[in-house]
Amino acid sequence: MTPVDTPTVEPVSPEFLYLISSDPAELAQAVAPLRGADIVDALNKMPPDAGARVVTNLPFDLAVEVLDEPELEHRHAIVEHMDRAVAGALIAAMSPDRRVELLREVPVKQRTQILKVIEEPDRRTLQALLQYEEHTAGGIMTTEFVTVPSTASAAHATERARASARAKDIVYAIYVVDAKNGSLLRALSLQDLLLASPADSVMAIGDRRPPLSVETDTDQEDVARIISKYNLLAIPVLDTHRRVVGMVTVDDVIDAMVRETTEDVQKFGGLEALDEPYLRISFFSMIKKRAGWLAALFLSEMLTASAMQHFSDELAKAFVLSMFIPLVMSSGGNSGSQATSLIIRALALREVSIRDWWRVALRELPSGLVLGAFLGCIGFIRILIWQHAGLYDYGPHYMLIALTIATALTGIVTFGSLTGSMLPFLLRRLGFDPASASAPFVATLVDVTGITIYFSVAFMILHGTLL
Amino acid sequence: MTPVDTPTVEPVSPEFLYLISSDPAELAQAVAPLRGADIVDALNKMPPDAGARVVTNLPFDLAVEVLDEPELEHRHAIVEHMDRAVAGALIAAMSPDRRVELLREVPVKQRTQILKVIEEPDRRTLQALLQYEEHTAGGIMTTEFVTVPSTASAAHATERARASARAKDIVYAIYVVDAKNGSLLRALSLQDLLLASPADSVMAIGDRRPPLSVETDTDQEDVARIISKYNLLAIPVLDTHRRVVGMVTVDDVIDAMVRETTEDVQKFGGLEALDEPYLRISFFSMIKKRAGWLAALFLSEMLTASAMQHFSDELAKAFVLSMFIPLVMSSGGNSGSQATSLIIRALALREVSIRDWWRVALRELPSGLVLGAFLGCIGFIRILIWQHAGLYDYGPHYMLIALTIATALTGIVTFGSLTGSMLPFLLRRLGFDPASASAPFVATLVDVTGITIYFSVAFMILHGTLL
Repeated sequence: MTPVDTPTVEPVSPEFLYLISSDPAELAQAVAPLRGADIVDALNKMPPDAGARVVTNLPFDLAVEVLDEPELEHRHAIVEHMDRAVAGALIAAMSPDRRVELLREVPVKQRTQILKVIEEPDRRTLQALLQYEEHTAGGIMTTEFVTVPSTASAAHATERARASARAKDIVYAIYVVDAKNGSLLRALSLQDLLLASPADSVMAIGDRRPPLSVETDTDQEDVARIISKYNLLAIPVLDTHRRVVGMVTVDDVIDAMVRETTEDVQKFGGLEALDEPYLRISFFSMIKKRAGWLAALFLSEMLTASAMQHFSDELAKAFVLSMFIPLVMSSGGNSGSQATSLIIRALALREVSIRDWWRVALRELPSGLVLGAFLGCIGFIRILIWQHAGLYDYGPHYMLIALTIATALTGIVTFGSLTGSMLPFLLRRLGFDPASASAPFVATLVDVTGITIYFSVAFMILHGTLL
Repeated sequence: MTPVDTPTVEPVSPEFLYLISSDPAELAQAVAPLRGADIVDALNKMPPDAGARVVTNLPFDLAVEVLDEPELEHRHAIVEHMDRAVAGALIAAMSPDRRVELLREVPVKQRTQILKVIEEPDRRTLQALLQYEEHTAGGIMTTEFVTVPSTASAAHATERARASARAKDIVYAIYVVDAKNGSLLRALSLQDLLLASPADSVMAIGDRRPPLSVETDTDQEDVARIISKYNLLAIPVLDTHRRVVGMVTVDDVIDAMVRETTEDVQKFGGLEALDEPYLRISFFSMIKKRAGWLAALFLSEMLTASAMQHFSDELAKAFVLSMFIPLVMSSGGNSGSQATSLIIRALALREVSIRDWWRVALRELPSGLVLGAFLGCIGFIRILIWQHAGLYDYGPHYMLIALTIATALTGIVTFGSLTGSMLPFLLRRLGFDPASASAPFVATLVDVTGITIYFSVAFMILHGTLL
């Protein structure tokens, strides 16, 4: 890893900001070279009351920028600790999407209080935004976008863009809407305006194709996929009349992607998504997120004990079989975990859809057989070597035991690959997130069946000799 | 999942493009409403020779756009199948970053041939770009950026931006460099220019802070993190004299993020990263990517058989112990997998650094004890219920057996949590990717030690009774 080169940003020690936050003039000077994101880093390491003091003493624009950062944790708690009037002014200046996020975090009672400090028409916008589902385009969009009627000239559009370009914001696009019914016709970039002659009609410049768009209820993962696929900086969000009601920008998408990847990785590891950084989540919250799945898996895995009780006669007669149980069963779990990770990711990237399950099954069946047979060979050879080298005596039927292990491995790895690959499909079919098909989940499923496969194979091969 | 709303993009059937690709005029008309990314979707489903025919017949600008798409697979194979002259013209028009990607894919011999069709000074640029490591800022940057000297006016900068703004490209930034030594002083956006008076000096507009930047050898993950943290659209890449040599844009970063997430998920599932979509990778490539880790894990897991041979006397005396082996061991693996997924992600997001290992250990030790004791209680109760309900007879010492299971679970889950959380740190310390700490890897590590813990606990508790 190469150290990050961010030459202009001094490492901010939280203590530093904290201590000087009592003298506004000094603070303002100290933070002048800092960016909002750096101050957020420092705030995230402070208790919310100290954070509130820092934000209160920041220059107004910077304070708004800080509260607008998606990475700010405890936004709500910080605002809580601030003077009501100061908080109101800051909230009123925040960007609409982040303001909605803040409102979602607070209890309904406080929502009403916050809504009171917001003036019309912002308040109405805010209330409308709150209606959208959290993980949809409507839930993450901003309402700060620029529109011009289709009858406008390039010069007029440039004027509109300039008027709404506040220093801190980026003009991602200028949307050209039908002068009569307000439906979206074109999306122009600043660059299109730069290249146009001032007298040109806005309909005559830039990309002539109707722009890509999403609807308010489009899932945020799909929004991310479209923005990423077409290399967009922003995508307009339309209502059912094709009128622009908002815009999702590429940086919101990145934040959403990072959050979702974290959730998926944690789910695949076999626990509930933490929703908070590892070192900052409270001990008992973390235990709670882990204990649930761990207990569920433990209870399911108890079936292995029951299965083995069922085969206790066989075990008593040929306890040598028990020695290979961890080996044989872990191989099933491992092959299942491989298959699951492949399919979860392929589903997430839309490389396969739920209808492709049989294609996947037709690939995993031979894959499992080949991989299982491969491991079976290694296992077979291992037993012969140990026996002949005198490392362990498996008894007179060691060849049959080796054959049992090899056959069981082939069966269990095949079963593991099939189960691991089909589980994400099954979960999606049942309306769950396929990413919930965790490695431990698959291993547990395979373990219980694996015991049965193992002893059935053993019974067939060793019947009349050991069993 | 809400269906994606992309109203203007018809679903492209690959057959459609394939069939009409013989009539250039018809093809040109058919593809006119399509975007490069859609054509790439279709090309990715075709054999490269058919893809080559389609690209050859596309309008020139669209063909270049298609070859420039990061999502295009088999770029090299498609170019291979094209007429030498046509391919040369297209490659010469491609963006520098994608051209480098193409050159990296081809054997060195063909590189020379391709380099021949590129004219100076592009050829020199290309050769310079090829020197950078693949996963660094230098390896993914483009060299198409706009600079103006610090002595220029806003009007001049606007003129420069306009001149270099080709219709298909986005002007992400205008870099202001020192008129004497060429070092980077400011980064302006089109919007800054829009808001400036034409006569303003470029040093007097926009953000007065020196811009954020990276160096050519900055790891692409760090580049992604900076762009995402500061919500940038692009970041300049500087040489050791702080001169701008390239620029990494947000859409390249998204592509890099998606690729890395896929790799990490697949590694965590316990296989080598596929590098190709699941349904398109050849059967034997896939087997190869899976068999390696599977065999390595299998060989390590063989130690469980050796460990159990070591305890074979105990097993023979108290074969009831063998029934709980899968249960006890899988719990260790599951808790390890949870801890690993938490730490891999926390390391990736830089929430924890390698120096925090002891903090993590201090959290995982009590977590493991609590979770292990919790599972131990469930296990203890399970045995008492089965015994008293007459579901299975564990013999006169069933209380001691239950105590053995509960104690072993506490120990193994604690060990699993600790091992699972420390493994990513250890891997990073040794210079490996912490994401290689897969769930199966951790489970295998825990299994081998778990056997030893289990039988040691059993020996202590059951010595003098069953053992």
